Amino acid sequence: MSAEDILNEIKAEVIRKAPGNAVITDVEFEGSEVVIYAKNPELFSNSIIKEFARDFRKRLAIRPDPSVLVEPEVAKEQILKIVPEDAEVTNCVFDANTGEVIIESKKPGLVIGKEGSTLEDIKKAIQWAPKPVRTPPIPSDTIKAIRATMYRERTDVKDILRRIGRRIHRDVRLRDDSWIRTSFLGGSREVGRTCIYHQTPESRILVDCGINIAVDDEKAFPHFDAPEFSIDEIDAVVVTHAHLDHCGFIPGLFRYGYDGPVYCTKPTRDLMTLLQKDYVEISEKEGKNVPYSSKDIKNAIKHTIPLDYGVTTDIAPAIKLTLHNAGHILGSAISHCHVGDGLYNVAYTGDIKFEASRLLEPATCQFPRLETLIIESTYGGYDDVLPERDETEKEFLNVMLETTSRGGKVIIPVFGIGRAQELMLVLEEGYNQGIFNAPVYLDGMIWEATAIHTAYPEYLSKAMRNRIFHEGDNPFLSEVFKKVKNTNDRRNIMDGDEACIILTTSGMLSGGPSVEYFKNLAEDEKNAIVFVGYQSEGTLGRKIQRGFKEIPLMGKNGRSKAVKVNLSVHTLEGFSGHSDRKQLIKYLRKLKPIPDRILTVHGEASKCIDLASTAYKLFKKETRSPMNLDSIRLR
Amino acid sequence: MSAEDILNEIKAEVIRKAPGNAVITDVEFEGSEVVIYAKNPELFSNSIIKEFARDFRKRLAIRPDPSVLVEPEVAKEQILKIVPEDAEVTNCVFDANTGEVIIESKKPGLVIGKEGSTLEDIKKAIQWAPKPVRTPPIPSDTIKAIRATMYRERTDVKDILRRIGRRIHRDVRLRDDSWIRTSFLGGSREVGRTCIYHQTPESRILVDCGINIAVDDEKAFPHFDAPEFSIDEIDAVVVTHAHLDHCGFIPGLFRYGYDGPVYCTKPTRDLMTLLQKDYVEISEKEGKNVPYSSKDIKNAIKHTIPLDYGVTTDIAPAIKLTLHNAGHILGSAISHCHVGDGLYNVAYTGDIKFEASRLLEPATCQFPRLETLIIESTYGGYDDVLPERDETEKEFLNVMLETTSRGGKVIIPVFGIGRAQELMLVLEEGYNQGIFNAPVYLDGMIWEATAIHTAYPEYLSKAMRNRIFHEGDNPFLSEVFKKVKNTNDRRNIMDGDEACIILTTSGMLSGGPSVEYFKNLAEDEKNAIVFVGYQSEGTLGRKIQRGFKEIPLMGKNGRSKAVKVNLSVHTLEGFSGHSDRKQLIKYLRKLKPIPDRILTVHGEASKCIDLASTAYKLFKKETRSPMNLDSIRLR
Ligand SMILES: [Zn+2]
Ligand SMILES: [Zn+2]
Ligand SMILES: [Zn+2]
Ligand SMILES: [Zn+2]
Ligand SMILES: [Zn+2]
Repeated sequence: MSAEDILNEIKAEVIRKAPGNAVITDVEFEGSEVVIYAKNPELFSNSIIKEFARDFRKRLAIRPDPSVLVEPEVAKEQILKIVPEDAEVTNCVFDANTGEVIIESKKPGLVIGKEGSTLEDIKKAIQWAPKPVRTPPIPSDTIKAIRATMYRERTDVKDILRRIGRRIHRDVRLRDDSWIRTSFLGGSREVGRTCIYHQTPESRILVDCGINIAVDDEKAFPHFDAPEFSIDEIDAVVVTHAHLDHCGFIPGLFRYGYDGPVYCTKPTRDLMTLLQKDYVEISEKEGKNVPYSSKDIKNAIKHTIPLDYGVTTDIAPAIKLTLHNAGHILGSAISHCHVGDGLYNVAYTGDIKFEASRLLEPATCQFPRLETLIIESTYGGYDDVLPERDETEKEFLNVMLETTSRGGKVIIPVFGIGRAQELMLVLEEGYNQGIFNAPVYLDGMIWEATAIHTAYPEYLSKAMRNRIFHEGDNPFLSEVFKKVKNTNDRRNIMDGDEACIILTTSGMLSGGPSVEYFKNLAEDEKNAIVFVGYQSEGTLGRKIQRGFKEIPLMGKNGRSKAVKVNLSVHTLEGFSGHSDRKQLIKYLRKLKPIPDRILTVHGEASKCIDLASTAYKLFKKETRSPMNLDSIRLR
Repeated sequence: MSAEDILNEIKAEVIRKAPGNAVITDVEFEGSEVVIYAKNPELFSNSIIKEFARDFRKRLAIRPDPSVLVEPEVAKEQILKIVPEDAEVTNCVFDANTGEVIIESKKPGLVIGKEGSTLEDIKKAIQWAPKPVRTPPIPSDTIKAIRATMYRERTDVKDILRRIGRRIHRDVRLRDDSWIRTSFLGGSREVGRTCIYHQTPESRILVDCGINIAVDDEKAFPHFDAPEFSIDEIDAVVVTHAHLDHCGFIPGLFRYGYDGPVYCTKPTRDLMTLLQKDYVEISEKEGKNVPYSSKDIKNAIKHTIPLDYGVTTDIAPAIKLTLHNAGHILGSAISHCHVGDGLYNVAYTGDIKFEASRLLEPATCQFPRLETLIIESTYGGYDDVLPERDETEKEFLNVMLETTSRGGKVIIPVFGIGRAQELMLVLEEGYNQGIFNAPVYLDGMIWEATAIHTAYPEYLSKAMRNRIFHEGDNPFLSEVFKKVKNTNDRRNIMDGDEACIILTTSGMLSGGPSVEYFKNLAEDEKNAIVFVGYQSEGTLGRKIQRGFKEIPLMGKNGRSKAVKVNLSVHTLEGFSGHSDRKQLIKYLRKLKPIPDRILTVHGEASKCIDLASTAYKLFKKETRSPMNLDSIRLR
């Protein structure tokens, strides 16, 4: 049966079972959902919708026919008229695709009204379905831009969703002897350019498509020269999280002809957009080869279908995807693919942290079914045991105290997403407890990344979520943090006498403001630099870490100048967003169910092999650390 | 540089270095050779040719321009005039592609003449290059048909060779970080539909492409649904030997659009043509699904480039192929691929026998270089130790004696190629030694297969070669053998009282005359049946072997009739064309050099795994028994 036939059948059934006076204008596949458009959607009770979903075995949505929706400008006026002024509505975001309007306000309770009465009034007046949320404490330009794109290009986006829907529900011949296979196109026995390619006779699913920013040749990108890779055949792309080694090539896929869906969480969509834009800008500035432009980034956004943790969705005929929390950075997910009807389940952890951090809950370790687990091995080696988190925090705050109390400045080069926010929380606590007394300047993309964090409280740990929305106790809004707005601000900080802490990108001093701070503050022995993340071979960060006493750097005038390194240099390993060896083993031990096969990836060769060998001893099941370009039949 | 550019460069160089009065009419790639056409090819001495070959690093041939070649009919007359009548010329085969004429005669010495003087005279008279060979003792219809095709379609064949040549010498970018990968599309952890797919960034090589004749659904064919398989991208197909589990799908490749070369030995080309034709005929008769027709078989012949053992040929940019003796059946080869310039070497044994048989030398176990060995595992299991050959022969001849001396008939259902000829040699010796005294009837394709054996003495063991060409001592021509020419002959044998031995196909009684003999001779307890090969589950052979006392069989009238099994049933395991476990281990021990990786295929799963585990214990190198659809990166 073709997608068209299925739709017609559903339409007939909907018309038969709908309330007598319902006016149904259209039934369409949009992504994996069946969407019913009606002139009077309010006639469909939740129980009717549930019954339909059960009958059709599809996700289902009932939406108002566009013709009944009030124009956004007019609708906004009406909302402001209906909602009491005390609610302090700050923004209304109309989503033409869902027929919903997000109403941001300082007091969402007043938008809801007694037993939802205000919501009811709004809906009746404008037909848009109102979704009240609390105004995010820090506005994000990225989110604003993404929302604007989605609204401006709503017709295009709807077309895309319908095309995807028809592809998902296309007619295929499912056979008993079906096979499942996974090719490793990048990020195996290495870190960078992660790319995992699931294949069945009917479908192709790409999970992650990263780049290795440390190299500037074709090894920066996954093995698209693998003979089984065909961009036209990909049904779906899944992104586990926003780090460029997992998502850096996603817009490139669109440049080279991909035209299908990208599945990830909303925070991942927003954070990856931020990082991809930054990558394009910096690479262009440095004259590097950039495989795509901001137009391709926008196209990727339009093709992105956000998924919450735990929601199961059809992404191809006979393949269902569920994302689970990975505990690594905001929105990071474990990809769990369910192939066939109970046939086979393969999960890929992406990057994981199996411990509660200040921001996030630990990674999920239980799945309904699981035959093959693909697990990261960044710290999978026999020696990769990291210091405990609380010890590290103590040491870290001690450096802050030491340096600022002698009137020095601390440079903390840091990756903008995840680690920066974790450190902000440590610094905020230290400041509140009086351990140090100096401002913390935020430079580079940290502020914007923090804004995105506060926009998705449901993705944060329960403790954080409560704090952020408890008035006046949002740690990110602490007076200790000062945003560096421009070059002038930055110069004042570097030239001034004030003791301070500077949290700045990039984390390996491979570019960005961190390099400038270093150049200007390195010669004064009162100052300090603290490395909290891995420094790649060849980066400036690594040279400083190694103890070089003089480093030639390019000056403003384009001439090389030797910078004397007199500041004190500290390295703290305990802030990693990855599980260390002990934690990875703990994860495997807690895993439910125990899979038949464990494949280790994302780590230097020896670390992948060490972890595979440990996993074998643990379970006596098949374990392997594939090479790039290996393709393993799972079933 | 494009193929065209290379050709032009070579042409310029040839013209510059050629003897002054040479008239060069064309320079072309034909297959992997550079062919220079000249009106006076005799002007090019061997030393000039060698120098060219060295300079261009290509195989080189100098051939007469077609315009100077005398018409075949006229040329034949001239040859008969020049060669003394005593030589008894029986046939002249003109090969328009090479400009050679094969002169078959009873006394080739007389065709050569004193110090080659007669050859010189012939060449001068007709320009064709004469190749004297001894007249094969048994004429083969298959060979005759193949030669006729090649002559009739010579223009087409030349076009094909030129196209292949240009593809081999196409311009590709060879990189240092090149990878090599092998996918297993069939015949892994099973016997049947062998298909091994080597891939590099630039090239695709298919080694074997077999069918499983025991099944009649899509599992009969290799996994062409593997995502990396693309028939348009294949550079070359290599066939190790003529058994249908290795070559049964070759004509199917042409039907589905393949248009490139097939590399194999000449005996393999001829034997596989015989078997493919037989397969098509029988399958059509039985109403089975046949994936190709005789037209496709002919097309495959036209695309076949024969290779002798030990000759190294370019088959793709940066891939060289060498075939080595496999000792399994006539013309059977080990495929050795040399990738890049000293980069990597992978050998696949096909099926091997590592012991001198009556027909063949043992398989080659030494290679110039070897990093990965793919080895068959038919008898690789811990229990797969077969009886010694001489014990088996004694037992076999004893059954002949016993049965014929009580006036009975012995049915020996046998596979037509290889095993049949081995048994003929055992029977001939037994008859000569007076162990039994009864005729041996040959029915089915055995006679024709034997004819092909006698046409390629250079592929037989040295001992056999000598015997065949020692007048009057050709064992295949012994008076004991009688050819069954038609149904009438067959009826007379079955109905008559004469004690006799019947060597007949098919080997598992899955069709062919062996079934008829069984039906008619089963009820008489004087008779015997001897199984010398593996009987698949479900075949009539297996039922008889198991000792069923009554078997329902379809009669002539289309009605089922119970056949009583009263004849004596024997099974002899020692005649296998495969090495048993002991011999496989011996092969691995003798292997030089020791490879870095051993992959076991072609056997039930447990046997492949047993052999891999033994190989691991032997070498402590990576060993694996891949699954169908696994793809393993070699480098
Ligand atoms: Zn990450
Ligand atoms: Zn990563
Ligand atoms: Zn599109
Ligand atoms: Zn064979
Ligand atoms: Zn075989």
